[in-house]
Amino acid sequence: RRSHMTVSYTDPQVSMDLLRAVLQPSFNDDIMAVFRKYQKFFEKAAQNVKVNVGDEVQTDQLIKEACRNVLEHAKQLFPEGEVKKVRAEIAIKRTRPADDDCS
Amino acid sequence: RRSHMTVSYTDPQVSMDLLRAVLQPSFNDDIMAVFRKYQKFFEKAAQNVKVNVGDEVQTDQLIKEACRNVLEHAKQLFPEGEVKKVRAEIAIKRTRPADDDCS
Repeated sequence: RRSHMTVSYTDPQVSMDLLRAVLQPSFNDDIMAVFRKYQKFFEKAAQNVKVNVGDEVQTDQLIKEACRNVLEHAKQLFPEGEVKKVRAEIAIKRTRPADDDCS
Repeated sequence: RRSHMTVSYTDPQVSMDLLRAVLQPSFNDDIMAVFRKYQKFFEKAAQNVKVNVGDEVQTDQLIKEACRNVLEHAKQLFPEGEVKKVRAEIAIKRTRPADDDCS
């Protein structure tokens, strides 16, 4: 089966991303399950925004943007460079405002 | 308590990101629990890469980059624009190669 593929197996990033792509659907299911736990908070917040700001607010878009930002910030669990101080890093970094969400 | 804060409550993005920041630690715990399910696959793959490519390969860095890429791709669960076709979108988009991980 694998011999039909044309990617380079000597490129570490490519090899790892093949595995990533294979696991992604399972990850997505698990990550969606996590988000469902918090869905009601985001819905409530978005409704409050709509009440305060006006009917032109698209609550769906606000919620999805918040979810993308959660995922962006969760990358700090896997920082480039050092490994040891993950927990401390998160505690510091999550006080910073969100960067753009590059989705 | 809230009156001490100086952020704008009329900016929808700011309001939503305050909630995001509050929930982020819980999200991170849940997301780490998800990643632990798949940890052994990434470790095995990174070890294989090291065997094939050489000892200069930093398996920790490879694994963390893969994890960041998982989170980046998971953003497609919450696409900008339309809401309905989330599942279909994912099925299509995950066949594309990874963009840069902008972590």
